[in-house]
Amino acid sequence: IDTKLPKVGTTIFSVMSQLAVEHQAVNLGQGFPDFEPPQALREAIARAMAEGRNQYAPGIGLPTLREQIALKTERMYGRRIDAAGEVTVTSGATEALFAAIAAVVRAGDEVIVFDPAYDSYEPVIELQGAKAVHIPLTVPSFGVDWQRVRDAVTPRTRMILINSPHNPSGAVLSAADLDQLAAIVRDTEIVVLSDEVYEHIVFDGALHQSVLRHAELAARSIVVSSFGKTYHCTGWKLGYAVAPAALSAEFRKVHQYLTFCTFHPAQVAFAEFMASTPEHYLELPAFYQAKRDRFRALIAPSRFKLLDVPGGYFQLVDYSAIRDEPDVTFCEWLVKQGGVAAIPLAPFYETAPDTRLVRLCFAKSDATMDAAAERLCKL
Amino acid sequence: IDTKLPKVGTTIFSVMSQLAVEHQAVNLGQGFPDFEPPQALREAIARAMAEGRNQYAPGIGLPTLREQIALKTERMYGRRIDAAGEVTVTSGATEALFAAIAAVVRAGDEVIVFDPAYDSYEPVIELQGAKAVHIPLTVPSFGVDWQRVRDAVTPRTRMILINSPHNPSGAVLSAADLDQLAAIVRDTEIVVLSDEVYEHIVFDGALHQSVLRHAELAARSIVVSSFGKTYHCTGWKLGYAVAPAALSAEFRKVHQYLTFCTFHPAQVAFAEFMASTPEHYLELPAFYQAKRDRFRALIAPSRFKLLDVPGGYFQLVDYSAIRDEPDVTFCEWLVKQGGVAAIPLAPFYETAPDTRLVRLCFAKSDATMDAAAERLCKL
Ligand SMILES: CSCCC(=O)C(=O)O
Ligand SMILES: CSCCC(=O)C(=O)O
Repeated sequence: IDTKLPKVGTTIFSVMSQLAVEHQAVNLGQGFPDFEPPQALREAIARAMAEGRNQYAPGIGLPTLREQIALKTERMYGRRIDAAGEVTVTSGATEALFAAIAAVVRAGDEVIVFDPAYDSYEPVIELQGAKAVHIPLTVPSFGVDWQRVRDAVTPRTRMILINSPHNPSGAVLSAADLDQLAAIVRDTEIVVLSDEVYEHIVFDGALHQSVLRHAELAARSIVVSSFGKTYHCTGWKLGYAVAPAALSAEFRKVHQYLTFCTFHPAQVAFAEFMASTPEHYLELPAFYQAKRDRFRALIAPSRFKLLDVPGGYFQLVDYSAIRDEPDVTFCEWLVKQGGVAAIPLAPFYETAPDTRLVRLCFAKSDATMDAAAERLCKL
Repeated sequence: IDTKLPKVGTTIFSVMSQLAVEHQAVNLGQGFPDFEPPQALREAIARAMAEGRNQYAPGIGLPTLREQIALKTERMYGRRIDAAGEVTVTSGATEALFAAIAAVVRAGDEVIVFDPAYDSYEPVIELQGAKAVHIPLTVPSFGVDWQRVRDAVTPRTRMILINSPHNPSGAVLSAADLDQLAAIVRDTEIVVLSDEVYEHIVFDGALHQSVLRHAELAARSIVVSSFGKTYHCTGWKLGYAVAPAALSAEFRKVHQYLTFCTFHPAQVAFAEFMASTPEHYLELPAFYQAKRDRFRALIAPSRFKLLDVPGGYFQLVDYSAIRDEPDVTFCEWLVKQGGVAAIPLAPFYETAPDTRLVRLCFAKSDATMDAAAERLCKL
């Protein structure tokens, strides 16, 4: 069988989680918490099932849930959106990213992505017969050189895909960055796809600069959010996309034939929980900042050098004092010999720079962090 | 915004369910049961959540669930499949259909579909830049004229999409049909995509002729199944695809970037339930045959003419004695004036024949059937 995706193997996240199990390593690789979603949410799902909410939900999402998403968007970003026409519930952020790209990008188009880039972006772009144009972020701050973006735009540029807080680096875009982006896309047909799955995990008092705060960008953006990252339930696969009505209409055309709708009982539960407990997401920055700081303190004595973490739940570390080898090789050694699973950065790049960085997830309980730190400090 | 899918609006199933709510009609439109999945399943999901199965499942599906699927496949169709390499769990059959088409079909390819065809097939084919080649089924038996298929095959034919039991007609393919198909695809590169979501709903003692019973076809087929249709939980969005290892590998490349994985607690629950209660699907033919027969008896006195229903959970009826108008118009009248939501056949066709048929779903409780029949018998 000739393949449509010759460059694609099994995603690095599956590979490393599998190796973690095989080698009984502490898994700081794939990005998921090892603690539980709120009990009230789990109970609300059980209740929704008992109450018979087990058949198709509306394809675009339960009206009560879309309403809560609209309320949250207004509270967080000061933007009133229309729950009926501008919010679509999806089977996780991954589906939302796929639907957005499939709805907008055509064969022959170009999509600008910033390397390191989440590993699903490029294959999904290629499946449209389009081309990912890679712009490296600056190292080690992982900022955007907007002049390079300006130079990369061509008449074929159909989309610019941004991601803040950024996976894997944790870098965040500033309001000034969004202004730069707005100036570049002004008077073009370029759609912005904004992957904001870590929107509630921003540290040190900073505000998350959602494109939804930016009127001009919001008018041409699809914004992707994740319940899994925000509510500690990555295995429930619930997310959503916010976009202006015309873009949402195109998005929904694809979504309805992609998954049609999403696990109905969880939609009931999130609609209830968001209404009763908005403090959950308001408290998330402090919750994860404590984890970040604890993890950094634990591995400070190690030979890893810690990069700054403005947002997200990943810590990049430089391992050059420990071994001098590429990150994929280092991660294999680390999971087998060091007993810790990490994620290399190479799979996030078209052309990886010669750095010595790997990604560690700190969305972990104290016990997991302690166990990992003990191992990491021995290396 | 210029659209990639100019022919696509909102799927007829969403439209009719929405109209049913607005007009307080009895909803026999969109295909879902109005009764509950087994209580043991709902309890098993609640238990899995309480036990902390809330983070990512393996992308290809939980090993225990894939194992149960392999066991079921052997028991039902006499084929041993490899749970590790040939089964992929998906977010419903809809996702499986999308992933299969996206993995195999390229720009410029042709895919043969049989009209009336489920409404997601063609848009998904078009999203690949490929072309759906429509072959009408014979009326009123909805059989395949294999000579027409033979004539429609070209060097560009990449896939033939079959669906048995067939939605909307309920027609089933015979073993002889599969032999005809096998002869046509022999010595070609054509992949068969077999939508078998109603596999356990076949009546009057007939055997479901899965392509998995047919060694030659199984070696080139992707077979799509649905937990939603089999276990009365269409809103849980769980399905799977079975395909030979090389095809599964391509399928998984797309699936991992499409939804990555599927609601984890339900996978735990189905693995348990399939192991403990295989009689559920073994008893399904009798369960739905009783519903079919009850529904037919109830509307026998009406002016609708009933077509035969060999499988699935839909009854086609001819309404020509009631009104002489196209099916879409009739369905609008029926939901507004008759108080019953049905599904017209036109959206399932490239070129609809001049028939007077609509589809009624009989996956309904006695009370729902009674209420619908009372209304239908008045027309
Ligand atoms: C869908 S698996 C990857 C999870 C994740 O967001 C990450 O580890 O970066
Ligand atoms: C995904 S909504 C459509 C459900 C269905 O299979 C049908 O009604 O034909």
